[in-house]
This record gives sequence, structure tokens and C-alpha cells, in this order.
Amino acid sequence: MAIKEGIRTGGRSARVQQSVHSAVRALLQEQDRASLTVPMVAARAGVTPSTIYRRWGELAALLADVAVERLHPDSEPLDTGTLRGDLLAWAEQYLDEMSSEPGRHMMRDVLSSACPGYCTTLLRGQLQTLLDRAQQRGEAGPGVERLLDLLVAPTVFRILFAEAPPSLQQLHELVELALRD
Amino acid sequence: MAIKEGIRTGGRSARVQQSVHSAVRALLQEQDRASLTVPMVAARAGVTPSTIYRRWGELAALLADVAVERLHPDSEPLDTGTLRGDLLAWAEQYLDEMSSEPGRHMMRDVLSSACPGYCTTLLRGQLQTLLDRAQQRGEAGPGVERLLDLLVAPTVFRILFAEAPPSLQQLHELVELALRD
Repeated sequence: MAIKEGIRTGGRSARVQQSVHSAVRALLQEQDRASLTVPMVAARAGVTPSTIYRRWGELAALLADVAVERLHPDSEPLDTGTLRGDLLAWAEQYLDEMSSEPGRHMMRDVLSSACPGYCTTLLRGQLQTLLDRAQQRGEAGPGVERLLDLLVAPTVFRILFAEAPPSLQQLHELVELALRD
Repeated sequence: MAIKEGIRTGGRSARVQQSVHSAVRALLQEQDRASLTVPMVAARAGVTPSTIYRRWGELAALLADVAVERLHPDSEPLDTGTLRGDLLAWAEQYLDEMSSEPGRHMMRDVLSSACPGYCTTLLRGQLQTLLDRAQQRGEAGPGVERLLDLLVAPTVFRILFAEAPPSLQQLHELVELALRD
């Protein structure tokens, strides 16, 4: 079961999503996520559990969806005037978000959901915005997959598997490497 | 609680570890990992549950330890005669192992254990072997942290979060980038 894209457009579907998301956010303020259940969320949202199972498949996918929405920036990535500046700003903000407690929870929720690819789709979109901007300025830039490998992957890998997140120094070196490519 | 290093040296400690590991491997062939419990493992291994809790702290850490040992190569990484060849061989083998079912389970077990840094320690050791060999040949090479970021991180990130593991082509390009650095 996948987190559906496109369910953020109006109508009943959007209202259901909004009330289920609100219910999750409210419940998470009152209790530990480990004790959360689908029937609890359904009761709070005023929908049936089967509505939730039908749309999200499992609690982990719903939690991932809520977390992604919370971390999904409403605004365009910062325009600093150069690709180097844009990448540095984006990478530092991404590091901040992912190394925060909600960011770590989100990564774990996404991992236990059946649709991890959803996040990389969002990330590619953000990075492509920076690359399109660079192209309009006449700047050369790497491809979006290279940015995933050089900026996103080391950040996520080190937060999840190493002793510490990457340092800003390490992140800056990776931006330089991506630009040199 | 950490997976202890150094408990692989002889004596009672090593015998306990060996029988607990064997018990886990045997039980995993008979039943789903989700239904495994510490008392079950203890009964099969002929130790008390508290022996397991004392050494591994939790089931996830024990499962991670068993999985890491299974994937931990007994032999030195392949010596192909050049750093490029060694890195390609190592990266391809790592990709194979991590994208396999046991590899994916291992990453998840390591994530739920309290000691994710243990794996990066093992990885650094393997990569350092390749770099030391290169140095003895008089070849210049990147640092071990750069190899973690450029070879390990994209492999792990794409297996866990993207639609597909990196392709061999992508992996080869990352090796070239690491060597150019």
C-alpha cells in the first residue's frame, strides 16, 4: 500500500486526509507513538479504521505521511544567487531537519512503511528546483541523482548508522565535490 | 547497551556467544523473526534470558550481531593489484550483500539496536585495509571517511529509501569520483 500522491487536492478525500492527519498530530502530543493504534486515530478523526487501512495500509505509512507533510517545506528553497550557495543552504537545512528528533522518527517511519521511494521523489523535486534555477542563471550543475548520492545519502547514512551526523565541514566538502563533478 | 567487541576471543564468553548465535540461526530457519523472543533464544542456547539481556541488552542488538557476523567476510578483501580494482570489487560485493534479503534485514536490525556505530567501525576497517594496501603500492587514495560517504552511503541510502539499489554504472562512477578526489 502506498502513500497516495495527489490526495491533497480538494473534495471528500482531502477532508478525510486532513482530519486523519490532525488526529495523528493531536494524539502524538498526548501519548507515545509506540502506543498509537489505527482504531485510536480513526476514533479521533471520526472515520472508520477501514478508511485508514484502505488509504494508508498500515499505521507506519500513515505516520510517515504525517511526518513527511510536516517536514515538507511549504516554501521554495532559498535562492542565494548561486548554485553553490543554494546547495549549501539546502544541505544545511536538510541536515538540521533530519538530525532532529522528528526527522529521525520520520526516517524510521518511512523505512517501516511500504513506500520508501516517496521521500526520494520529494527530494528530487526540491533539488531539481535548485538545478533549474542554476540553469536559468547559465550555471553548469551536476545531475539530480548525483546530488542525492553526494548530499542526501551521506547525511542520512551518518545520522542513522554512524556515531554522528556529518559535520558542516564534511557537508561543505561534499557540496564542492558535487560542483566539481 | 552495545554489541561488545572483543567477545570473540576464547573462553566461556566465546562459548556463550557461539551457542546463542547458533540458537538464533537455528530458530530463524524454523520461524519468522517477528515471533522470536529472548526467552526462546535462551532456552535453545541453554543460557538464562538474563545472560542475553546482560550481553546484548535487547533482541534487536542480538539479531544485528548475528547478521553482522554472518555478513562479516572471514577473508581479507580481494587484492586486484590496484586501488581502483579493489574499490570496485569491494563496492560491488557490498552492494550484493546489502541488497540481499539478509542484508536488508541486517540494516533494519542494526537500526533498531542501540549501537548503529558498530557497523561503520567494521566498514572503516575493511576500507582501511584497501587504503593501506594502496599506500604500500605507492598509490594515492582518498580518506576512509570519503569512501564511507561516496561508496557506502549511496548504496545504503538507495537500498533503503529509493526505488532501486544503485546500478553498477552508478557505483563505478562513484568509485571514479572517490579516486579523483
